[in-house]
Amino acid sequence: MEKTTVNLHSRPKLKSPVLVEGLPGMGYVGKLAAEHLAEELHAQKFAELYSPFFPHHVVIETNGTLRSLRYEFYHAHADSKDIIILVGDVQPVSSEGHYEVAERVLDVAKQFGVKRLFTLGGHATGRYSRGKPKVVGVGDSKLLKEFRARGVTIEKGGGPIIGAAGLLLGLGKLRGIQGVCLLGETHGAVVDHRSAQAVLEMLVDVLGIKIDMSALERRAKKTEQMLERIRREIERRERKERRAEEKEAWYIG
Amino acid sequence: MEKTTVNLHSRPKLKSPVLVEGLPGMGYVGKLAAEHLAEELHAQKFAELYSPFFPHHVVIETNGTLRSLRYEFYHAHADSKDIIILVGDVQPVSSEGHYEVAERVLDVAKQFGVKRLFTLGGHATGRYSRGKPKVVGVGDSKLLKEFRARGVTIEKGGGPIIGAAGLLLGLGKLRGIQGVCLLGETHGAVVDHRSAQAVLEMLVDVLGIKIDMSALERRAKKTEQMLERIRREIERRERKERRAEEKEAWYIG
Amino acid sequence: MEKTTVNLHSRPKLKSPVLVEGLPGMGYVGKLAAEHLAEELHAQKFAELYSPFFPHHVVIETNGTLRSLRYEFYHAHADSKDIIILVGDVQPVSSEGHYEVAERVLDVAKQFGVKRLFTLGGHATGRYSRGKPKVVGVGDSKLLKEFRARGVTIEKGGGPIIGAAGLLLGLGKLRGIQGVCLLGETHGAVVDHRSAQAVLEMLVDVLGIKIDMSALERRAKKTEQMLERIRREIERRERKERRAEEKEAWYIG
Amino acid sequence: MEKTTVNLHSRPKLKSPVLVEGLPGMGYVGKLAAEHLAEELHAQKFAELYSPFFPHHVVIETNGTLRSLRYEFYHAHADSKDIIILVGDVQPVSSEGHYEVAERVLDVAKQFGVKRLFTLGGHATGRYSRGKPKVVGVGDSKLLKEFRARGVTIEKGGGPIIGAAGLLLGLGKLRGIQGVCLLGETHGAVVDHRSAQAVLEMLVDVLGIKIDMSALERRAKKTEQMLERIRREIERRERKERRAEEKEAWYIG
Repeated sequence: MEKTTVNLHSRPKLKSPVLVEGLPGMGYVGKLAAEHLAEELHAQKFAELYSPFFPHHVVIETNGTLRSLRYEFYHAHADSKDIIILVGDVQPVSSEGHYEVAERVLDVAKQFGVKRLFTLGGHATGRYSRGKPKVVGVGDSKLLKEFRARGVTIEKGGGPIIGAAGLLLGLGKLRGIQGVCLLGETHGAVVDHRSAQAVLEMLVDVLGIKIDMSALERRAKKTEQMLERIRREIERRERKERRAEEKEAWYIG
Repeated sequence: MEKTTVNLHSRPKLKSPVLVEGLPGMGYVGKLAAEHLAEELHAQKFAELYSPFFPHHVVIETNGTLRSLRYEFYHAHADSKDIIILVGDVQPVSSEGHYEVAERVLDVAKQFGVKRLFTLGGHATGRYSRGKPKVVGVGDSKLLKEFRARGVTIEKGGGPIIGAAGLLLGLGKLRGIQGVCLLGETHGAVVDHRSAQAVLEMLVDVLGIKIDMSALERRAKKTEQMLERIRREIERRERKERRAEEKEAWYIG
Repeated sequence: MEKTTVNLHSRPKLKSPVLVEGLPGMGYVGKLAAEHLAEELHAQKFAELYSPFFPHHVVIETNGTLRSLRYEFYHAHADSKDIIILVGDVQPVSSEGHYEVAERVLDVAKQFGVKRLFTLGGHATGRYSRGKPKVVGVGDSKLLKEFRARGVTIEKGGGPIIGAAGLLLGLGKLRGIQGVCLLGETHGAVVDHRSAQAVLEMLVDVLGIKIDMSALERRAKKTEQMLERIRREIERRERKERRAEEKEAWYIG
Repeated sequence: MEKTTVNLHSRPKLKSPVLVEGLPGMGYVGKLAAEHLAEELHAQKFAELYSPFFPHHVVIETNGTLRSLRYEFYHAHADSKDIIILVGDVQPVSSEGHYEVAERVLDVAKQFGVKRLFTLGGHATGRYSRGKPKVVGVGDSKLLKEFRARGVTIEKGGGPIIGAAGLLLGLGKLRGIQGVCLLGETHGAVVDHRSAQAVLEMLVDVLGIKIDMSALERRAKKTEQMLERIRREIERRERKERRAEEKEAWYIG
C-alpha cells in the first residue's frame, strides 16, 4: 500500500447526501457522536479506506482477530434525507498524510454527490465544567446561521482547528463543498459522551432528522457523574491546601 | 534506491508454503525464533529485500566487511511442508515505510503462493516472571483454535500490535492471506531466548514439523539464569529497603 | 492534494516585476513588512498556493468561516514598477516540503518574468535593544551594494538562514534569478513592527517607490513602548537582585 | 526541486577513477581529509548535487552572497591515477533522503567508471587521547589487507556505521563497486585535524600518491594543543576533587 486506498463494497444510490464525519480526537467527541448516529440510523457500511499514512499498528478485535486501521463509510436514509457517515480508528500520522487522506475522503464525497459536510469534534478547555457543554461552530456563513438559531456559538478568529475535522472543510471548500464544523466543549483528557450528545443534538436538529438519544444519554450521565467526582475531589484538595496555608500563616504571624 | 527492492536469487518451486516472519522487536523474541527455525531446517536463502525506509546505517560483519540493512527470505522443506522464513536486521523507520515494506513482503508471499502467515514477536510485560512464558495469539479464528488447543492464550480486544508482526497480518488479510500472530511474554529489556523457545514450540506443533530445540534450549537456560539473578537482586534490594524503613519507623516510634 | 498546487485567479501582464516575499518567521518581521507593502500599494491578489506540506490545520476567519492554509500572490504597480508580493499563513512543515514549495513559488516567478527576488525576515538576537533595528543583507553582490549605500550591513560568512527567505534565494539563483535577503534585527519572541518598518524602508528606497509608512509607524511605536516596558522591568529586577546579593554579602562578611 | 539533482559542469575523461568521499560528520574528520586532498591535488570541480532532502537552509559565503546546500564533485590526476573527490556542506535530513542521495552519488560514480570507493569519517570515542589517532577500517576484504599492512585496525562486528560513509559502501556493493571506509578515532565534540591527517595518510599511501601534508599538519598541531589543554584542565579538576574527597574522608574518620 503506497497510496491511500478506498475499497468500495457497494454503490448506494444517494440523493444529494450530506457527509457527517467523526474521527478520534479531543474527548472522542466527534467519534462518539458519529458512531451513535450510524448506530441509531442503522446505517450500512459501503466503503473502507486504508492508508500508509496511518500508524503502523493493527487493531485486535474482541474475538481475537486483528485487522488494519481504517476509515469506514456508512450510508443511511432518515426522514427522506440521505446521509453518509464517516468514522474511523485513527487520524493520519503526518501533515502530508492528513492532506492525502482528506482528499481521498473528498473523492468519495464527490463521487456520491455530497453537497454538505458536517465535521464533528471536541474543543479542549482543560476544565471540568458543569451543565450542558457549549457547542462552537465554524464554516459556511449560511449554514452557520441555522446553527446559531439553535444555540451554537460562532467562533470568530480563534485558534486553528487541527486535524481532519478542519482540513476536510478547508479542502472541501476548495473543491466546492460547503460545510460546518461543530466542536463540543470538553475537558480533553476524558472520553466525553456528554459533549458528544450536545454536538449531535445540534446536528440532527439542523438536518431535520430524529434519532433516539437514550443510549448516548445514559453514557453521558456516567460521564457527568465521573466529571462530578473529579470536580469534587479537586475542590476538596484545594480546600485542604487552603486551610493548611491559613494555619501556617497563623503560626508564622 | 527510491523504492523498496526485492532481489530474487532463485525461484524455488514451493507447494502452498506458509510464511514465518521474525524481525527484531520486543526481547528479540520473533527474530530469535525465526532464525532458530531457519538454522535447524537448513533453510536456503532465495531473496533479499532492501529499502530506503530502513535506517541510514550499515552492518559491520564479523570479518570486517560491511553491508546494507536487509530482510532475508529463506525456504525450507520439512515433513513434506514448504516453509518460507523471513528474518531481517531491522524494521522500517516510519509508518509509511512500514506499510510499503510490508506490501513488498506480501508481493513475495503472493508470488510463491503463500496461504498462511505466521508472524512471531514478543509481548512486553516489564516483569521478570518465573516459569514458562505465556504465548498469546491473535488472528484468523480457525487457525487460532488449533493454537488454543495447544495452550496459546487468545488475546481479545487488547492494545494494538505495533510493527511488522501485526501489519503483515492486517495487510495480508486485505489481500486474502490469513494468518496468526504469536507473541511470547517477555520483560522487554532483555534478549529472551526462553520466550522465543515458547513461541517456536507452539508454532512447530501446529505446523506439524519437528525441529531440534536443544541449541535454543541451551541459550534459553542462560536467559533463565540471568533473569533469576536479576530477580534475586531486585528482591534482595527490596528486602534491604524494607528493613531500613522498619528500622527508621522504630526509631521514630 | 498530493502536490503543492497554485490556483491562478488572473494573469496580470507585468513588465520585469520584482518579487517581494514576507512569510511568518522571527518576530513576524517579513510578514508584517510584506503585508504593509501590499496594503499601501493596494495590491491585487492573482494567485493562491496550497500544499500538503503545510501543517494539517485550518484558519478561522473573523467572520466564523474557515479556510485552508495558503500563500497569496499579489501584484501592484508603483512608480512605473511592477511588483509581486508573496505573503502567507505559514511555512512548510518538513525540509522536503520547504524545497517543493519554494520551487512552486519560483515557477510562478518565472511565469511572470520576475528578474529580482527580495526576501524579508527577522534576525533573532534575543535582546531588547533600543534605537533603530539594524538591517542585515545577504545575496547578489551588485544588488547588495545599493543596499549598503543605504545603511544595510552586509552579513559575511555568518550562520545559515533557515526557511523560505533563504531557500527561495538559493534555489532562485540556481534558476537564474538574483536577489537579496533583508533581515531586520529583532528579539525573536515579540511581534516586531519596528523591525518590519526598518526592513521595509530599506527595500522601498532601493526599489525607488514611495509608500505611506504611518500605519506601520503607529504600530511600531507600540512595539517600541512594549519593548521599553520589558527592558525596564528586566533592569528593575536585576537591580533588586544585585542589592539582595550585596546585602547577603555584608551579613556573611 | 522534488528530486535530488546532479548538475554536470563538464565531463572529464577519467580512467578507472577511485572516488574519495568526505562529508561532515564526527569531528569533521572525513570532510577535512577530503577537502585537504582536493586542495593539494588542485582538483577541478565538475559537478554539483542538490537535494530536497538536505536541510531547509542556505549557506552565507564570506563575501555576503548566499547559496543552496550542495555536494561537490572534483576530479584530480596524481601519479597517473584519476581520483574523484566528493565533499559537501551537509548530510541528508531523513533516512529516506540518505538512501536517495547515496544512489545519485553512485549514479555519478557509475557514469565515470568508478571501480573503488573510499569513504572517510570519524569514529567518536568521547575521550581526549594522546598520540596518533587510531584509524579503523571496514569494507572489502582484499582492499582491507592493504590497509592492515599499513597499520589500519580492522573493525570486526562492531556497531553500525551511521550516515553517508557507510551507506555509500553498502549500496555501492549492491551495484558492484567495492570499497573501504576509513574512520579516524576522534573525541567527537572537537573539529579534529589530527584525526583527519591520520586517515588521509593511510589513504594516500594505499592509493600510491603523494601529497603535501604540511598545511593539515599545522592545523593538526593546533588541534593537538587544544586537546592537550582540555586534557590538563580535566586532570587538574579531577586531582582537586580527589583531594577534597580525601580531606573530607579524614574529617569524618
